[in-house]
Formats: sequence, structure tokens, C-alpha cells
Amino acid sequence: MSVPSIPRTEIVTVGDELLLGETVDANAAWLGRRLALIGVAVSRRATVGDDPAYIKEAVRDALDRTGTVLCTGGLGPTRDDVTKEAVADLLGRPLVMDGEVLRRVRERFESRGLEMPQINRKQAEVPEGARVLPNPRGTAPGLVLEDAAGRMTVLLPGVPSEMEALVETGVLGLLERRWPENRRPIRSRVIRTTGLAESALAERVGLADLEDSGQVVVAFLPSPIGVDLRLTVRDLEDGAAASALDTVEARLRERLGPWIYGRDREDLVDRVEELLERWGWTLAVAESCTGGLLAKRLTDRPGASDSFLGGVVAYANDAKQALLGVRARTLETHGAVSEECAREMAEGVVRAFGARAGVSITGVAGPGGGSPGKPVGTVCIAAALPGGTATEGHRFPGDRGEVRDRSAQACLDLLRRSLEGASP
Amino acid sequence: MSVPSIPRTEIVTVGDELLLGETVDANAAWLGRRLALIGVAVSRRATVGDDPAYIKEAVRDALDRTGTVLCTGGLGPTRDDVTKEAVADLLGRPLVMDGEVLRRVRERFESRGLEMPQINRKQAEVPEGARVLPNPRGTAPGLVLEDAAGRMTVLLPGVPSEMEALVETGVLGLLERRWPENRRPIRSRVIRTTGLAESALAERVGLADLEDSGQVVVAFLPSPIGVDLRLTVRDLEDGAAASALDTVEARLRERLGPWIYGRDREDLVDRVEELLERWGWTLAVAESCTGGLLAKRLTDRPGASDSFLGGVVAYANDAKQALLGVRARTLETHGAVSEECAREMAEGVVRAFGARAGVSITGVAGPGGGSPGKPVGTVCIAAALPGGTATEGHRFPGDRGEVRDRSAQACLDLLRRSLEGASP
Repeated sequence: MSVPSIPRTEIVTVGDELLLGETVDANAAWLGRRLALIGVAVSRRATVGDDPAYIKEAVRDALDRTGTVLCTGGLGPTRDDVTKEAVADLLGRPLVMDGEVLRRVRERFESRGLEMPQINRKQAEVPEGARVLPNPRGTAPGLVLEDAAGRMTVLLPGVPSEMEALVETGVLGLLERRWPENRRPIRSRVIRTTGLAESALAERVGLADLEDSGQVVVAFLPSPIGVDLRLTVRDLEDGAAASALDTVEARLRERLGPWIYGRDREDLVDRVEELLERWGWTLAVAESCTGGLLAKRLTDRPGASDSFLGGVVAYANDAKQALLGVRARTLETHGAVSEECAREMAEGVVRAFGARAGVSITGVAGPGGGSPGKPVGTVCIAAALPGGTATEGHRFPGDRGEVRDRSAQACLDLLRRSLEGASP
Repeated sequence: MSVPSIPRTEIVTVGDELLLGETVDANAAWLGRRLALIGVAVSRRATVGDDPAYIKEAVRDALDRTGTVLCTGGLGPTRDDVTKEAVADLLGRPLVMDGEVLRRVRERFESRGLEMPQINRKQAEVPEGARVLPNPRGTAPGLVLEDAAGRMTVLLPGVPSEMEALVETGVLGLLERRWPENRRPIRSRVIRTTGLAESALAERVGLADLEDSGQVVVAFLPSPIGVDLRLTVRDLEDGAAASALDTVEARLRERLGPWIYGRDREDLVDRVEELLERWGWTLAVAESCTGGLLAKRLTDRPGASDSFLGGVVAYANDAKQALLGVRARTLETHGAVSEECAREMAEGVVRAFGARAGVSITGVAGPGGGSPGKPVGTVCIAAALPGGTATEGHRFPGDRGEVRDRSAQACLDLLRRSLEGASP
């Protein structure tokens, strides 16, 4: 078997906790999404427990079928971590101590003033001839094993942040280089939308005439906080590919204008930051049912502090009055979950922080707290800018987590639209 | 092959959306948990797309290995639902129209005042000789196929609520009758720790002597915010199983006392809530580098509002002074990232909200903002209770997301330990 010509791989995830259902296999889903974005298909997935015989069988079968296997889990320092040993045995590669890896593991501990425990030595053993991918977030490196026939096995740790970092920094590039004779370069672009459900979006997009060039395929990737549209083009030279994608993107923007907030990995927060910077405005947030989620999203990425001053989580009504200046009369007349209250919260947080812009969220995230007039999912949001305050009332579906996610997204989107229409 | 004597099964989940990562395979995890409770182990899982050839291969391999397969997904009415057809073909059973199923599907539509769409007729076709499990929540029935050798294939819809209902009402009984001697379910218990790395924990635990009864197996499940220890026992009567688990848990508590915060699915937040309720205390939080994450965690689950009043995200230094009363002198002398500042933030947020307890986080989450004396990962936390204020300084590894996660966890754990030692 030579290097397979079709860019596809199988995934093997390892861990008793996965089979027992104690952990949901989010790694497998993340890998599927990430690989799809570079045009590599996952043709099959297997999950096995921490058992060398099962691991060997799963990796062997996957290699036989596809020639490329990504394997996650079982690279830790403890006795139940057996993936590396099993795969080394399967491929006939003895484990050897790698001085460079050992040095890095030891350094990781020393940088925190700790001595490396003896059992971590195990993590510095690598199968003979393996390529080592340094792990920026943990002690277990990624390992790449290729045989004479070109079959490739990649071993990754199961801790999501470590797995993801290794994929981003090492594995994706490896896979892109793996199919150099591939005459079907894949270019894709993601157009990000929020505020319209998948079916409503599909009707508005009019897929048939959108794809009529026959070169660009559009896929819908829905999530509770929005729908991404993935545009994929194959078999075209760079210039022609970009122009085909541009044509379809332009049509999408015509049809979906206000619902599109970004492209590719651009988050709604990035867009909001960009607009705030353009006007030179600072932002503060006031939130109730989202309980900190909105502020967290604004600070997930570095650089937020340029325009973000902070926020108030006013979970109790007293706090809405004391810290944000919401009037008792407003709470009595309209209730805490009202556009009136949202307005006063947004305007109050502007005053409290001395900010130029303020947003707010107040609602019923559930499962309790609903009433016939304001059932679970009722959420009011506001955006106060120097030119005026906009408010919106929503009724979101889903459980507590979803309602909170949708609320934060809707609030950021209201801010985005307000900023796009603003003049400083 | 006769009915296999060991109660184990394989799971095959079907759907392009699973491989593409658009859907996380929560069904597989749910099945694993539910089957473990009746003592049936899942020995392996496979996920394939909506492709008859792959479905057949996966089901065939699983049947060959285990003799019992549960298969979810691909029973819907549309063109891409092909699981039933593929398995019928694999097992040589032609599809025949089942009048009773057709009647039920039609009734389901009529009860909502709708006519059954033509494409739903397809759902009333069943493989010859299949046992039909009526679906109380949807149109696709469960199907059970047994061959002369006693091998069993169970087909279930992929919609979680429908799959779960069919398992509860039909499949579990079927599996219990399949292994009548199996009165010995798998029992497991999870002991949750934070504050010690996996390897340090393993050394302290001393695995060999911990498991010396030979009945309880201990596995380490690490994450950036703590390490869970899973204790598993098989082949014991209920009483003996519980007592074996109790023995090992008691030894763990002796050796790991302060690092253990909970059991099974109990979160650190649950434990903190429980202690706050015990003392009848309210809580407010002040956070800087975590930017809302701490408040978010406290409100992720319902019921938080009982003791949680709210919080201040003081991202800018001005906000630390204006809203929390941190003294300019403290910021000048010690800097914003100092135990002194953390102390004033925690005590200040207690005043601002009129709370009994307050916690705070201030640090450098990175990637920017570090200095030689206070590199990225330097984080100070404080917990102010009526009896006094405790502070801690940490240096956390990892990227921005990890430093923030670790900071929130460490702050909650400082609060837990302070509350455990408090008297009201």
C-alpha cells in the first residue's frame, strides 16, 4: 500500500470512560470539524477501552482500511495509559527513551518549582523512529509513526486542550502535506450568520441557483448560536477558486446581509471589538440570567482589555438597583425581565464604569422561574450607545445552557448591528 | 456461535453529522452509562456515515466479535436514512410492509390533525422476522433481529429522546433476559480532586496497596482543573460491591483528604453551594483576568440564585477602585496582581453587594501582560468570610484559556476549604 490518494482518515478514541459514558467523546467531534475544514474526510471512527488488545485491533483495522489513523487518549503517565505501548507493539517499534522529550517534561515541572515525579519518565519513551510533536500545553507529546508503505498513525493525548493544540500546531500541516499528488486542491470559506434558523436561512439562500456554477458546494453547519455556511471549491487553480468563492459570497451577502457577522474563524466578539476600536469607544456589560457568560466571551481572547472595562453580574434584584441604578418602580411595573429593565441596566452600567457603550441581558434561563406571561426562554437585551439605546425581547428555545448561549450571542449581535449603524 | 456468555455488546452509531463533528455523539455515552447499570459492558464502539457499505461492514464486524450489537441512527424517512436497508441486506432479510407499524405511524400524524406524508410509509417496512419495539415518542420503531446462531442486532433511531425511550421500555429487558445469570452489574464511583497534578496524586495514592483486594480497579481521569479517580468493581453482589468501594474510598480520603471535593457528578460549585447554604451565607465575586468565568460557573446550574448575589468584572484598574474600593496605594505599591489587591477586591465586593462571603481573582492570563516578576500564569485569589480573609498566590501553566479555568477552579477550592473550616 502506498500513500492513499483520497484524503481521508479514521479516528480511534481510547478510554474506558468513553465506553462507560462518563465522558462524552467531544474530541472526536472536534477532530471531525477541524479536518473537514482542510478537506480531509473522517470515514470511520472507533472507540475502545484502555486495553492493549482492543487498541491494537482497532488501529490495525483502521490502517488496513484507510492508511491514516488519528488516535486520541491513553498517553498519560499512569498505569491505565497503554495506547503508546500497544501501538508500538503493533507496529514492531520498541520504546526508547527520548532525551529531548524527557528534558521538556522535566522543564515543565521545574518551571513551576516542582520536581518531576518518577512516573512521568514513562512519557518520555517514544516508539523507535517516531516523529515527536512537542505538546505546548502538557507533558505527553504527540507521536507520528510512518511505515515503509506510507501508512501513518498519529497518537495524541486525550485532554482536549492538549489534543487541539497539537492538531493546530502539527497535525494539520502534516495531513496537508500528505496528499501532495492530490490534484483536487480544496479551498473553503466559512460565512458566519446568527439570528436565523437553518430552515429559514436555507429558504432565503435559495441553494439551487446559488450553486449553479457547479463549482462551489455550500454546506450548512448549524449550532444553537448561529449557522455557518461552508463554501467548498475543488479542482480549480487558486485565482479561479477565489473568484468562484467571491461570487457565491457576494450572492450570500445580498440575500443574508444583516445576518452575516463574519468569515472563517472570526467570532462575533472580534467583529464587535473591531467596531468599538473604529469609534474609539469603551464597553461595559450588565447581565443577569447569563451570570457572567457575556463578560467571559468578551474576554476569552486576548486584547479584549483595549475596549472592555468590565461588567456587573446583577443576579439578585437588589444588585440591579444598588449597582446599576435600576428604579424600584421599573421592577414593580414591568418586572426584572423586561425591555424597560434591560434599558436601565445598559444605561446604568455605562454610568457605573464611565464607559461609552453598555449592553445588558435579563431573562429566564430556566428550568425554574418561568410564568405564563414570561415562560423559560424569555430574554430582554439592550445596547446603549451615545446616540441612543436599542432594546429587544426574545423567546429562545432550548435548555438553560442553550438559552444562556443564545442570549449572549443575541446581545453581542444587537451591539454589532447598533455599532454598524452608529456614528461617533 | 451460540448466545455469548459474557454480557457485553458493541455499539454502532450512524450519521454523517457525527463524523463531520456537527453533532457530538451523546447517544453513545448515554447508552454506555445505562448498560453499565445493568451489568452489560460496551466493549467497542464504531461510528460510520450514512453509507450502506460502511454500515454493513461495521455491524458485521461487531456481530462477529461480540454477537450483540446496538445500532443507532438512520431510521428516519428521508433518502439519507439507510441503516435499516443496509442491515436487512447484510442479514438476508427482505423488507416487508408491517400493517401494524403503518397504522401507528399514520395515527401519530392524525392525532396532530395531519395527513401522513408519503415518505413516512418507508418507516413501516421492517426486515422479515424482526421483532418490532413500538416507539412511544416518534415514528421510527426499534427493530430486533436475531439469527439462528443467537446473534442479535438492535436498530434504534438516532433522536436521543426516542432512542432513550426505546431502550428503557424494550431493550434493557431484552438484554437482561439474554444473560439471565448476570446478576452482577458493574458498579463505579468517581472521587473528584483538584489542586494536585496527576502524577503527584498517583504517587500519593500508592496504587498497588490501594487496589490490593484485587476487586476494585482505580483509573485516573485528568483534566486541567483536576483529576477524577474512577473506582470500578465487577462480579460482586450489591452489598459486597458497595463495601469494596467504600474501603477504597476510605483509603483515598485518608491519603488525599484536602484535595477531594466531591463524588461522582458533584461539581466544586455544588459543594460550595452546599456549604454556603449550611451557614446561610450569601456570596459575591470580584474577578479580573477570568473576566466573568467565575460568575458563569457559579450560575451554570439552576438554583445558584439561592446564595449567589452577583459579581463585578473589574477588568480595568479604574473599575477595581471605583466599584470595589481597592486603594490607589495598594495598586501603586503591590500592583493589581498581588495578594493584597485580591484581598481588597474580595472584601470590597462583600461591601458592594451586602454579601456575607466574597471571593476574588486577579492575575495575568496571557499571552501578553507578563513581566519577569509576574510572568503569564501568575494569579492571586482571595476568600473573604466573616471570620477573616484568606489569600493565595499561584503560578499556573497553560495558555490563556487554561490559566483562566485553573484560576476559577483554584478560587472555588479556596472558598470550599475556607467554608469547611469556618464557623458561622
